[in-house]
Amino acid sequence: MTLDKIYHAAFVLKDIIRKTDVIAAPELNPDADIILKTENLQVTGSFKVRGAAYKISQLSDEEKARGVIACSAGNHAQGVALAATKAGAKSLICLPDNAPISKIEATKKYGADVCLVPGVYDDAYNKALELALELRDSEGYTFVHPFNDEDVIAGQGTIGLEILEQVPDVDAVIVPVGGGGLISGVAYAIKALNPNVKVYGVQASGAPSMVKSVKEGKIKKLASVSTIADGIAVKEPGDLTFDLVSQYVDELVTVTDDEVAAAILALIEQQKLCAEGAGAVSVAAAMFNKVPVAGKKVVCLVSGGNIDVTILSRVIDRGLLKSGRTLSIQVNLVDKPGQLQGVANCIADAGGNVTYINHEKATEDMSITDAYLRITMETKNFEHIDEILTALSDAGFTYQQF
Amino acid sequence: MTLDKIYHAAFVLKDIIRKTDVIAAPELNPDADIILKTENLQVTGSFKVRGAAYKISQLSDEEKARGVIACSAGNHAQGVALAATKAGAKSLICLPDNAPISKIEATKKYGADVCLVPGVYDDAYNKALELALELRDSEGYTFVHPFNDEDVIAGQGTIGLEILEQVPDVDAVIVPVGGGGLISGVAYAIKALNPNVKVYGVQASGAPSMVKSVKEGKIKKLASVSTIADGIAVKEPGDLTFDLVSQYVDELVTVTDDEVAAAILALIEQQKLCAEGAGAVSVAAAMFNKVPVAGKKVVCLVSGGNIDVTILSRVIDRGLLKSGRTLSIQVNLVDKPGQLQGVANCIADAGGNVTYINHEKATEDMSITDAYLRITMETKNFEHIDEILTALSDAGFTYQQF
Repeated sequence: MTLDKIYHAAFVLKDIIRKTDVIAAPELNPDADIILKTENLQVTGSFKVRGAAYKISQLSDEEKARGVIACSAGNHAQGVALAATKAGAKSLICLPDNAPISKIEATKKYGADVCLVPGVYDDAYNKALELALELRDSEGYTFVHPFNDEDVIAGQGTIGLEILEQVPDVDAVIVPVGGGGLISGVAYAIKALNPNVKVYGVQASGAPSMVKSVKEGKIKKLASVSTIADGIAVKEPGDLTFDLVSQYVDELVTVTDDEVAAAILALIEQQKLCAEGAGAVSVAAAMFNKVPVAGKKVVCLVSGGNIDVTILSRVIDRGLLKSGRTLSIQVNLVDKPGQLQGVANCIADAGGNVTYINHEKATEDMSITDAYLRITMETKNFEHIDEILTALSDAGFTYQQF
Repeated sequence: MTLDKIYHAAFVLKDIIRKTDVIAAPELNPDADIILKTENLQVTGSFKVRGAAYKISQLSDEEKARGVIACSAGNHAQGVALAATKAGAKSLICLPDNAPISKIEATKKYGADVCLVPGVYDDAYNKALELALELRDSEGYTFVHPFNDEDVIAGQGTIGLEILEQVPDVDAVIVPVGGGGLISGVAYAIKALNPNVKVYGVQASGAPSMVKSVKEGKIKKLASVSTIADGIAVKEPGDLTFDLVSQYVDELVTVTDDEVAAAILALIEQQKLCAEGAGAVSVAAAMFNKVPVAGKKVVCLVSGGNIDVTILSRVIDRGLLKSGRTLSIQVNLVDKPGQLQGVANCIADAGGNVTYINHEKATEDMSITDAYLRITMETKNFEHIDEILTALSDAGFTYQQF
């Protein structure tokens, strides 16, 4: 890698990508000066288009004419598809056949042909490699690796140049890590220009392949990965990215799925930004002080925003529960008239807003004449929940909270 | 109003507000070239801080020392609070006592004192005016009107200057309208500099006070307002804003709550941006061709992002339902073993993901031995829903869809 290459990538990318804004986030961690680099607002909704576009720009006219092939269930697919279309090249994307419809549609929308491969990501990856080899003579697609490629890394490194320009007095940069392409480029660019700036990497605790590899000093492959940050659920780093991360990154840490969910919710509520799990791990690390941020000016790279709304809806629901804005209880009733009315009165008078109710007959361990009510309601905060529960107790009801 | 005043406001606001980014939104309406002016990413999450900060900057040192008073349950409160704090002035905000806790906390957080007034917005407004008069001699708060004030309007007008600078070849600008302060400033600035640019205003169909007033040529007060776009639920325009809108705005239109919800969901899915209802009405107007946008370069002003996550969660759920990603059905069962298994098999084989199930005994119009199942599941799209329903029919089940 050279700084020249990254500057060249920045020059080439000028007309393809957006120079995304940096936005202050004063509430995410009151002890630090947090700034977000909003690559979730990049075209295609993630940084991946940078590396893909630079890689494709470096192909010969003949190679461009023959097209590119890639394997991805997500952001890399959309990045390659858009970059190829803008370069006038065709693209073929291999996806596992269980990929969400929305991802398949998005990839097609940017102009790619899609090849659905039965199985999981690894199967699609092998199929893409196989096709790249098979077709080399006849159609000759060039394979675009999602991270282990010097041109791809240089493209992602342009974000490092932008951060130093947009926040010249930055103390530290926190970067999500999957295969390591993004942080390799960003860390190289930043350390080459200002070695005093710390660069921290964040993985999901359910997919810590780079963390483990760097700790043990050699590339380790995980048997399985599991995290809501699906964009960085990578089993094994590449050799290029492993070397660059080992050399240029100050520290690698992990965050849990619950921390990621809290970060996604905080970005929505406080910053009006929608981030995907992989994009929010940097924010989670800053919120929960996983790296030293107190008193520092810290840029969190929010790498992407392509979250499925079904997942987003669940994250919000979980967040509401965790912040005292939803209450689910089971109230025990004795079998006599007016019981439902009594419960309804307590809740209504205390200002709870019922969204679900179910009346069920006794279970084995209760008296045969008894029943219970399962109720979910919207609440204001934990004090409000206490108020409602106290009202129920005072009226003589017993309950279990979920 | 003068252009000088708006330029002066821009100069004063330079160090207080963010110059928010403009972001292309190619998918919101494929027939038009839509660009978003992202005032939801403004400090405090809305444009309101601009007008408040310019108003406060124009007070004498003595007036600043005595402080400002305002009435608002939302963005204006936060704007005034932050602007006053930044100017070293104290602020007192009157809120109706049923205002969401989150809004009260946000207002306090920016440094304001909060006065909770029993009743609704109008009661809080009258209390604020009363306090402003009462306290004139002793404490002497200056009242900051949310829209009907020339300095406030000039502050909002700075957005017009930014749009013309950021999108010099813009054909039309679409602006949310509540009391009319925002569009008055923006329309004045734009028409003064480039009268060829169209300026359209959008109100919620449940709160069309400006639409009605301009149509009838005089200020009309609505008896009541009802919309999810609570930030623009204003019963009566001001005289200043009525005059400016009548003179400088090309057309006023309305959008329904369903259209606003669709716009909020589209902004999240396609643009990774969180907008409140009032902030999304401009996007709704462009998506649903309420004003002539085809073939034009159109800036939609997304005025704010302060949406309660409970509401956001409901908007997403509704959006999922409307886009075929949730299915709720009631399946009729005859009372014999294996029925539940049969239904479960159909759904599982077709790839539906059950999120809620309830088994209930027959209602009056069914055979006494029968029962039904209420099921909610996650689905991929409308075709997927058809697949699941066909599988159920083929297996001999009857159902009702909700």
